[in-house]
Amino acid sequence: MTRRFRMDLAYDGTDFEGWQSQKEEGRTVQGEIEKALGVLVKNPVPIVGAGRTDSGVHARSQTAHFEVTHGRMDGGNFKRGLNSLLPPDIRILDCRLVEESFHARFSALARVYQYYILPATVALPWEDRYCLRVNEVPDLNTLNAMASHLKGEIDFTTYSNAQDPSLSKNRFIYHACFFTQGDKLVFRISGNAFLWRMVRSLVGSLLELARKGQGAEAFRQNLDARDRKMAGPTAPAKGLFLHKVIYDEREFSF
Amino acid sequence: MTRRFRMDLAYDGTDFEGWQSQKEEGRTVQGEIEKALGVLVKNPVPIVGAGRTDSGVHARSQTAHFEVTHGRMDGGNFKRGLNSLLPPDIRILDCRLVEESFHARFSALARVYQYYILPATVALPWEDRYCLRVNEVPDLNTLNAMASHLKGEIDFTTYSNAQDPSLSKNRFIYHACFFTQGDKLVFRISGNAFLWRMVRSLVGSLLELARKGQGAEAFRQNLDARDRKMAGPTAPAKGLFLHKVIYDEREFSF
Repeated sequence: MTRRFRMDLAYDGTDFEGWQSQKEEGRTVQGEIEKALGVLVKNPVPIVGAGRTDSGVHARSQTAHFEVTHGRMDGGNFKRGLNSLLPPDIRILDCRLVEESFHARFSALARVYQYYILPATVALPWEDRYCLRVNEVPDLNTLNAMASHLKGEIDFTTYSNAQDPSLSKNRFIYHACFFTQGDKLVFRISGNAFLWRMVRSLVGSLLELARKGQGAEAFRQNLDARDRKMAGPTAPAKGLFLHKVIYDEREFSF
Repeated sequence: MTRRFRMDLAYDGTDFEGWQSQKEEGRTVQGEIEKALGVLVKNPVPIVGAGRTDSGVHARSQTAHFEVTHGRMDGGNFKRGLNSLLPPDIRILDCRLVEESFHARFSALARVYQYYILPATVALPWEDRYCLRVNEVPDLNTLNAMASHLKGEIDFTTYSNAQDPSLSKNRFIYHACFFTQGDKLVFRISGNAFLWRMVRSLVGSLLELARKGQGAEAFRQNLDARDRKMAGPTAPAKGLFLHKVIYDEREFSF
C-alpha cells in the first residue's frame, strides 16, 4: 500500500548549494533528506519540494512530500527518525500522512518569502548569516509606496535573471510590503510562484531606489519597461527566507 | 608615543578553538584579531583579552586591549578597519583610546555569562548553534531556589574540571539566576572569575537535579562536598555566551 507523507521543514541555507543542485556533486537540502529517508526505509525515496530555493537561501517553512510503499512508520516516527539522522542545519518541523492527491508543488496556492534587512553599522555574528546589513535606514513609507505596485498579475521581465528558463515572466502577486520587526526591516511578498532570483532582484532594486530618493513612480517605470537593464543590484541570498508555503485558503493572512 | 586601546567585540564561537589555543595550529579569536591588527599597523600587535573562552563558547561582549606605538589611527579607524578585515563571525562593537592603566584582564571587576536553554522538541537551525535544547520544561522555581545558593565566596571544587590549573577553587559570585526570554530559559551568572568549564558544569548539574525532582538541598550538599564526582554532566559549549565584562561599578545591574 502506497502512503504519501507531507513534511514541513526549516533549514539554514548557508552551507547548501540550494534545495536541489544542477550538478551531481554538492551538498543540497533535498539530497541530505533523501539520504536520511533512504536509511530509515532501506530504499531510495525521492522527495518533491514546493519550490527550489537557491544556494544560500534559508527556509523557515518549506514543504515537501514523499511516498513509501512498505514499512509501518507514521508521521511522528519519520519526524523523529529524520531529525536524529539529519545535520542540525535541517530540521523537520512536522510530518504527517496526506491524501494521495496532495502534491507539494502543484497543490501549493502561494509561496511567502521574507527578506531581512538590518540598518546598523555592525551586524552581530549570529545575525550576519540571516540578513543584509545596510548603513542607512531606508524610508519605510517610500518602500511601501513602491511595494504597493506589486499586486496582481505582473510581467517581471525587469526583475528576472538571464538564466531563468521560464517561458512566461508573468507571476501573480497577492501581497508585498515592508514592516519592522525588532531592529530589522522585513520585506514580505506572497505570490503564486516566483522567477529565479526575482525576490532578491526586487529587494536590491527597491533599496537602491529608496537610497537614491526615488519613489513609486520610478519603480513603476522600471517594472513597465520589461527590461533587465532597468533592475538594480541583486540582494545577497543570506537575507532571504522561504517563510511558508500555503495550501489552504484559510492560511492566507496578510 | 604608546597609545592603549580597549575594544569590545562579539563572536560566534562555533568555528573557533576558543579565544586562545594551547596548540600552535587551530583557528582562534585572538589569532584572527592579531592577524587583522598586524595588517592595519604593519607590525605584530599582541592583544590581551578579559578571559579565555573555551572552544565553541560565544561572546556577546568580550573585552580586550592592545597597544600601538606609531601610526595615527583612532578607535573609530580601528573598528572600521578590523571589521573590514575580520571574518563575519567576529565583530568589533567598539574601539576607543583608554588610559595606560586600563588592563582588559586585571581591571575587570566581574564577568557575566549567560547560558541559553530551549525547551522544545525541535530547535530551528538558526537557534541550534546558540542554545541547549531540552525535551522537558524545567521548573523555574526549583532552578532559582538552587541558584540562590550561588552567592558570595564559594569553593567550586565540585564543579571544577580535572584539567583546571587554578590553585584555589574559590570564586566570588555576585549573582546567579534563571529567567525566561521569549521561548528560552536563560541562566545568568556574574562573578569575579570562573574556573575552566565551571558554568557549563553548573548548568548541566542544575538541569539534571531539576529533572530528577531534587532541589536546593541536594545542590547545596553537592557544592559542600567539594568532590568532582558529585557534579552532573557538563552542558555543551554552544549554549554559553560571555555576556559582558564589567569594569565600572555603575555597570553592575542584576
